[in-house]
Amino acid sequence: MTDLVTVGEATLRFSPPRGERIETAGEFAAHVGGPESNVAAAAATLGLDAVWLSKLPDTALGRRVVGDLRRHGVRTGVVWTDADAEDGRLSTAFVERGGTAGATTVTDRDDAAVTTMTEDDVPLGVLRDAETVFVSGATPARSETLLETTEWLLSVASDAGATCAFDTRFGATGLDAATARELYDRLLDDVDVLIVDETDAEAVYGLDGDVVPTGHSLRTRYGCETVVVTREDPTHAVVGLEGESIYEVPPYEADTRDPAGVHDAFVGGFLSGRHRGVGVHEALRDGAATAALKRTIVGDAVVGSRRDVAEIQARRER
Amino acid sequence: MTDLVTVGEATLRFSPPRGERIETAGEFAAHVGGPESNVAAAAATLGLDAVWLSKLPDTALGRRVVGDLRRHGVRTGVVWTDADAEDGRLSTAFVERGGTAGATTVTDRDDAAVTTMTEDDVPLGVLRDAETVFVSGATPARSETLLETTEWLLSVASDAGATCAFDTRFGATGLDAATARELYDRLLDDVDVLIVDETDAEAVYGLDGDVVPTGHSLRTRYGCETVVVTREDPTHAVVGLEGESIYEVPPYEADTRDPAGVHDAFVGGFLSGRHRGVGVHEALRDGAATAALKRTIVGDAVVGSRRDVAEIQARRER
Amino acid sequence: MTDLVTVGEATLRFSPPRGERIETAGEFAAHVGGPESNVAAAAATLGLDAVWLSKLPDTALGRRVVGDLRRHGVRTGVVWTDADAEDGRLSTAFVERGGTAGATTVTDRDDAAVTTMTEDDVPLGVLRDAETVFVSGATPARSETLLETTEWLLSVASDAGATCAFDTRFGATGLDAATARELYDRLLDDVDVLIVDETDAEAVYGLDGDVVPTGHSLRTRYGCETVVVTREDPTHAVVGLEGESIYEVPPYEADTRDPAGVHDAFVGGFLSGRHRGVGVHEALRDGAATAALKRTIVGDAVVGSRRDVAEIQARRER
Amino acid sequence: MTDLVTVGEATLRFSPPRGERIETAGEFAAHVGGPESNVAAAAATLGLDAVWLSKLPDTALGRRVVGDLRRHGVRTGVVWTDADAEDGRLSTAFVERGGTAGATTVTDRDDAAVTTMTEDDVPLGVLRDAETVFVSGATPARSETLLETTEWLLSVASDAGATCAFDTRFGATGLDAATARELYDRLLDDVDVLIVDETDAEAVYGLDGDVVPTGHSLRTRYGCETVVVTREDPTHAVVGLEGESIYEVPPYEADTRDPAGVHDAFVGGFLSGRHRGVGVHEALRDGAATAALKRTIVGDAVVGSRRDVAEIQARRER
Amino acid sequence: MTDLVTVGEATLRFSPPRGERIETAGEFAAHVGGPESNVAAAAATLGLDAVWLSKLPDTALGRRVVGDLRRHGVRTGVVWTDADAEDGRLSTAFVERGGTAGATTVTDRDDAAVTTMTEDDVPLGVLRDAETVFVSGATPARSETLLETTEWLLSVASDAGATCAFDTRFGATGLDAATARELYDRLLDDVDVLIVDETDAEAVYGLDGDVVPTGHSLRTRYGCETVVVTREDPTHAVVGLEGESIYEVPPYEADTRDPAGVHDAFVGGFLSGRHRGVGVHEALRDGAATAALKRTIVGDAVVGSRRDVAEIQARRER
Amino acid sequence: MTDLVTVGEATLRFSPPRGERIETAGEFAAHVGGPESNVAAAAATLGLDAVWLSKLPDTALGRRVVGDLRRHGVRTGVVWTDADAEDGRLSTAFVERGGTAGATTVTDRDDAAVTTMTEDDVPLGVLRDAETVFVSGATPARSETLLETTEWLLSVASDAGATCAFDTRFGATGLDAATARELYDRLLDDVDVLIVDETDAEAVYGLDGDVVPTGHSLRTRYGCETVVVTREDPTHAVVGLEGESIYEVPPYEADTRDPAGVHDAFVGGFLSGRHRGVGVHEALRDGAATAALKRTIVGDAVVGSRRDVAEIQARRER
Repeated sequence: MTDLVTVGEATLRFSPPRGERIETAGEFAAHVGGPESNVAAAAATLGLDAVWLSKLPDTALGRRVVGDLRRHGVRTGVVWTDADAEDGRLSTAFVERGGTAGATTVTDRDDAAVTTMTEDDVPLGVLRDAETVFVSGATPARSETLLETTEWLLSVASDAGATCAFDTRFGATGLDAATARELYDRLLDDVDVLIVDETDAEAVYGLDGDVVPTGHSLRTRYGCETVVVTREDPTHAVVGLEGESIYEVPPYEADTRDPAGVHDAFVGGFLSGRHRGVGVHEALRDGAATAALKRTIVGDAVVGSRRDVAEIQARRER
Repeated sequence: MTDLVTVGEATLRFSPPRGERIETAGEFAAHVGGPESNVAAAAATLGLDAVWLSKLPDTALGRRVVGDLRRHGVRTGVVWTDADAEDGRLSTAFVERGGTAGATTVTDRDDAAVTTMTEDDVPLGVLRDAETVFVSGATPARSETLLETTEWLLSVASDAGATCAFDTRFGATGLDAATARELYDRLLDDVDVLIVDETDAEAVYGLDGDVVPTGHSLRTRYGCETVVVTREDPTHAVVGLEGESIYEVPPYEADTRDPAGVHDAFVGGFLSGRHRGVGVHEALRDGAATAALKRTIVGDAVVGSRRDVAEIQARRER
Repeated sequence: MTDLVTVGEATLRFSPPRGERIETAGEFAAHVGGPESNVAAAAATLGLDAVWLSKLPDTALGRRVVGDLRRHGVRTGVVWTDADAEDGRLSTAFVERGGTAGATTVTDRDDAAVTTMTEDDVPLGVLRDAETVFVSGATPARSETLLETTEWLLSVASDAGATCAFDTRFGATGLDAATARELYDRLLDDVDVLIVDETDAEAVYGLDGDVVPTGHSLRTRYGCETVVVTREDPTHAVVGLEGESIYEVPPYEADTRDPAGVHDAFVGGFLSGRHRGVGVHEALRDGAATAALKRTIVGDAVVGSRRDVAEIQARRER
Repeated sequence: MTDLVTVGEATLRFSPPRGERIETAGEFAAHVGGPESNVAAAAATLGLDAVWLSKLPDTALGRRVVGDLRRHGVRTGVVWTDADAEDGRLSTAFVERGGTAGATTVTDRDDAAVTTMTEDDVPLGVLRDAETVFVSGATPARSETLLETTEWLLSVASDAGATCAFDTRFGATGLDAATARELYDRLLDDVDVLIVDETDAEAVYGLDGDVVPTGHSLRTRYGCETVVVTREDPTHAVVGLEGESIYEVPPYEADTRDPAGVHDAFVGGFLSGRHRGVGVHEALRDGAATAALKRTIVGDAVVGSRRDVAEIQARRER
Repeated sequence: MTDLVTVGEATLRFSPPRGERIETAGEFAAHVGGPESNVAAAAATLGLDAVWLSKLPDTALGRRVVGDLRRHGVRTGVVWTDADAEDGRLSTAFVERGGTAGATTVTDRDDAAVTTMTEDDVPLGVLRDAETVFVSGATPARSETLLETTEWLLSVASDAGATCAFDTRFGATGLDAATARELYDRLLDDVDVLIVDETDAEAVYGLDGDVVPTGHSLRTRYGCETVVVTREDPTHAVVGLEGESIYEVPPYEADTRDPAGVHDAFVGGFLSGRHRGVGVHEALRDGAATAALKRTIVGDAVVGSRRDVAEIQARRER
Repeated sequence: MTDLVTVGEATLRFSPPRGERIETAGEFAAHVGGPESNVAAAAATLGLDAVWLSKLPDTALGRRVVGDLRRHGVRTGVVWTDADAEDGRLSTAFVERGGTAGATTVTDRDDAAVTTMTEDDVPLGVLRDAETVFVSGATPARSETLLETTEWLLSVASDAGATCAFDTRFGATGLDAATARELYDRLLDDVDVLIVDETDAEAVYGLDGDVVPTGHSLRTRYGCETVVVTREDPTHAVVGLEGESIYEVPPYEADTRDPAGVHDAFVGGFLSGRHRGVGVHEALRDGAATAALKRTIVGDAVVGSRRDVAEIQARRER
């Protein structure tokens, strides 16, 4: 049985050194990023057996994506397309990390191989054998084909008894609110765990009040067992709702050297907490500490071990 | 017609990585800096057709200065001296960027080729064709020859109908207050736009009160149309005076990764604002946003585009 | 009057350090490459006023291309498309430099903005004012639109009295022999100077004998004034034919640190030799020395000065 | 069924940049090396499902070893010892790569965790499920415990029907000839494929004549099905003996940027050739081409794909 | 007469770039660290003739330690052991600098050559000729041999009239409180200047109240002339006690780029202040300014000059 | 007694990475070079107690020169001039290492502090206590003051019984042949060991025949005990003459990664051989092996140990 299966796109992201710009930098560091690969990397860092499924061109760039994820401890199930670009590219992006004045990202994602991923490209055995399946809203928004594939896989996973987790990631969908809402409505029936940022809730559903009613409203709308609302202001507490219970966990303090993937690290940490069976409150704490660890690391995926996460938690207790 | 012509010296500046010192660093990054080249680079970044005039030795170092400025979008009009050092060196400096405890600069500027630049070295057509001409106090302070050349070019530009802009930059002159005051008195008759830091106003003219009377006092003294007073404390608002109007623009927030050239980016942004005809208040905002952008970039010149500057401004409005 | 106008595509090329691979390298160096931009850079290095015309997306990547070429002394005339990728991408490539076992290149060139470049995107004044116009076979092979644009511009330039130079670059066209031959036949009527590699002559025209008859054959076919045949084996002499004369110039010795752009450096050196009016033999020597200089430099464009080229030539004479 | 299982030690190796020395270099690159991990990496590069078994301290260094091997596509089965150094260190080495005058290696291998690896630390299922099992002479020479473990695992694998492959690697054992011979005599009964360098054959067995009789002599001594003799002079052909047949394969040409791991890449390529069932001659060619690929790559393990190896072979055929 | 002699261990410390982790970093910077070598480097930076005595393996790593300390202006008196690791290793450590979430250090210090250093390894003339002798608690805690050697050398130095200075460094001893207290009790009789952090005072002696009584208590216990209590919270003032006088010096402001060695820089600055005879208050100010300088520099030892320290002090006065 | 005292200038030399040019490189590595400092570094590497005497500005650059030489094991005796450039600069140079097509050096040596070095700046005790004193022709050619100082110090050293060694280094003097000959004639009376390159002998004295008669001729002219003639072609044998004996030592094979300082490494190795009393033949072999070691190292000074040199020699013997 696999602990966690995630399905989605990964982008090869190139970044100039801190303080330099894409226009003039001499060197670019390469990192692999994507909501689902980041979540898998965070879960693997915390000890889960995590698998990432996707479709990639069979080039040195595609192999690099797989190699980098393996290095993070993620197992990969990849359908390879022909090396010729005609069968689909690898998405790339050029990213100035650090979030300061003028930070720019140039994305180059058209015609990515993953957009043609159908249910035939998903290893059914792996999917059926998963304890938890995770996908973000960014994946089904990439193409009609991927939307259908996502719908199918959430339904298959749900039928097989897996916990289905979904992160709205409205900003990454590139859709307008109405289209996104339609997409979420189509997918969220099979979802048990919904992660949603408060800005998504406001932009997509017009829920702009307190986060607890926001969470309740979405839980009711989609019948999810658990809803986690993350916060726009990184100093505010995340909120988890399950049954009648409401849990709030403030962020762990840490310098922000690279905001990329911090949200995904939270999700990966939270899902791994759930996996070890500690209840929503403790799982939110795992998520928050994993996010803090990620924040101090340059790149999209968290690097380290459960011990690092435990130490961050212990430091606050002291 | 050229939008902006600047005349002055550029120095090749070598810096150890952040956190390392000149004594022990293994590698040095190279950047071109100088008040007038920085101002030209900022103006070009904002879309102006900017030309920098100077005199350089015809060596790989001299060619590097020209290449780097061209990369920033600046056109260059350079008189080349013989590669043999006897006809004049290129100024170099070794700079620890970041402004923290112990940060050191070793300058090596004697016998620079630019110090022998006479009016014969200035392409008259370019000068007469300029909409705005800019020079800082650092240039005429380099040599008696350069002082005469500066005097001549401000007078020629003024006669040709150009706007003449001048930045006192007392600290960069290396002069005592009395000599600097004399120098300014000799040059500022033809100046329409005067930029002066409040510390310069105090050190050179003893104007140590509020910045508005300081600005008025200097405007009266030199009959400039516009006076801009920049501030010692980088969190204070810059002040612009024109006619009866007084404008204050607080700085845009941004981390300071490298303070070098921030003042010059302000000047370049301000002059480009004036050039697009938006009035002093808006031009000060252009200057302040360009300065914020520069602050986050390592090196002496700002890198980016008008869109980056507009976004910094828009972020505050939201 | 502009000395040289070139029209074509530039690709942003990312390379791992020597001895590392795309799969695992931590950092990638960025260089701008393309037959026409490389030729313009070589000509500018040798003192020509060279302009490169193209179409680029208005992103940090597009601006980088322009900045890098300007640094090489090339003036640029670029039509900017909207920053959104929908109006066309910038071509990128991932290149392992050095030419040893296993060296790999992954290109990513579909939907480049330049492929939509029409005659409306060409500044007519610049074109008509050119002394020499250069384009390679790689450009018209990119799209039907570009083929029409190339045909039009060679005809306009020819009518305006410019020397038209053309480099077959069959390998870079990605076409089969018959299609390429058709393309060349359509374009070469207006061409005065034809550069062709002996492997192209064999592959496209079946001319697999000695290079001199090969050159004569092509000169007759297209009525070019001058034909230069470059060699597959880099130790063999290039051959130039003009009128009844035949000139052979062996390569100058130099280590090969990066073979990229060496052929283009030859072309740029040759055209700059022609420009200074020294006759084919001397121009071939300029080309060969510029190629030798490029060979020792990492990146697609040559860097240096006429003095470097002269010194390489003088060293052999001694 | 696993294609290849290797068992042994991996060392974290730190290298100054080419041309710098351990005494003065500012930065050190890190690579994981070891005969068995290098062989597994080469086999995985060529598409095999390869597993490396070992024992490591549970520190960031230990996790790095696993992460790096996973990135090379190797699956790992590691017994983790307590992070406290008392339970065993990770071996480290400081290596000046390139093999020129004065190149130095400082090894630091005492008390490595792997030296305490017993049969209880070997996952029996993985071992029994292996098609091929590989170990080098370096492993049993590390400790009496490892010698016993090696003896046991070759016997278990042999009983389970696996092909057992062994590489003498006398130089890496650090033993004198008599002790090494004793060790080999104790282990080689269960070995089917023996790889031995001609210098080992001479030093350990006094076989200093031609390589073919040397191979026969060792095949007779140990009753191996296949013997491969590698050569001291890297331009000489390797020789393989099986049954009555003798095969010679000269090396593929390639620059030597880093000689580390070239021999192991040969072994991994050879074993993967055998695995795809192509006969000794073809398998030797796979080994030789994999070695050529490695030679041009900095680091201990080969990076690339079967396609790279095929292309190196195809280039010679042309 | 030598101004300062320090005796102890130095560790070669390898660090990934800021924001990267040991698990995944491509490059590691190397720095030499150790309480006594750091103190000697700080003193040499401030102009003292400082000698560091130790025992090292005669390898490129050992020579690097000596070379790096010499570069910091420290003279070295080293007993070399055989290059073979059997005579003792060099301690190494892998350190993530910056002190943020998850920062990890992996030390590898067993069997270091220095642990076998006896009085025969100490150059008696140098020791007897010292004005001040310094050792930290980390040194005698390394081995019984080193404890005896430390006892002997403090007694010899004391008899020869040197000032003996000692820094408890309880955290670096790795001992439990009782054993550490015993060790301190055995050594501190001959000590004139005791530096102790308030956390050491609490952990070892249970002195958890205000720092002034803590200092008095330790001064009484060991009969030291001078006691300096450093603070856990880096924004609190250090306190010095001598005779009836109590001096408090708040820290100088500076960014913390690397906390390593800041405490040692304080000690070296303080001892150099004492050496130039300025009294405890001024010496504490020298220590505090040297610590501020160190804080902004990456690496274990401070780099700069007395002028840098003086400028940091002058800046506060203004 | 000091084994070797050298007196001269050191230049801080900045180099782009291999394959990059001064015009465009992003980073420059810094190395200290100079005939006398290089010779001292080579001698110290081989175990001699070597002192370098000079005059430097008291800046971070000047301190860097001293720190780098100390790291090479050289003791320094430096007179510091005021940090203000008016009292003399530090010489700098920008150097493209590797010796290929177009390699360029830009030197910037005017007004160096060392040119004002008088006999008052030389520590008389150190000079009188030297066993060997070395200076190259580059030093007295820098200024009339330095010429007088050199004359004086050779005479003082000679009177004190030191061996005086001199290396002509005509190319580094920048003089014409007649002036250089005059300078040598003025200095060489007190010289015991003369090192001269065959190209110097031809250019300055018109000795263009075989090297043995050349050596004899110079030995006769100046009455030196020993003359060593080095060779233009680096594959030719150096020749040493002493009394009636003639010794020839061919170079040791090694890749040339950086030719800078190879000649000086030979001289330092030769002088250290003489110092350990092995006779001219063996000393030439020490010089040749030290030169081979240097050739493979990037930078001006050799790095390593006597063991490295011995190993290079042993490799040839085998």
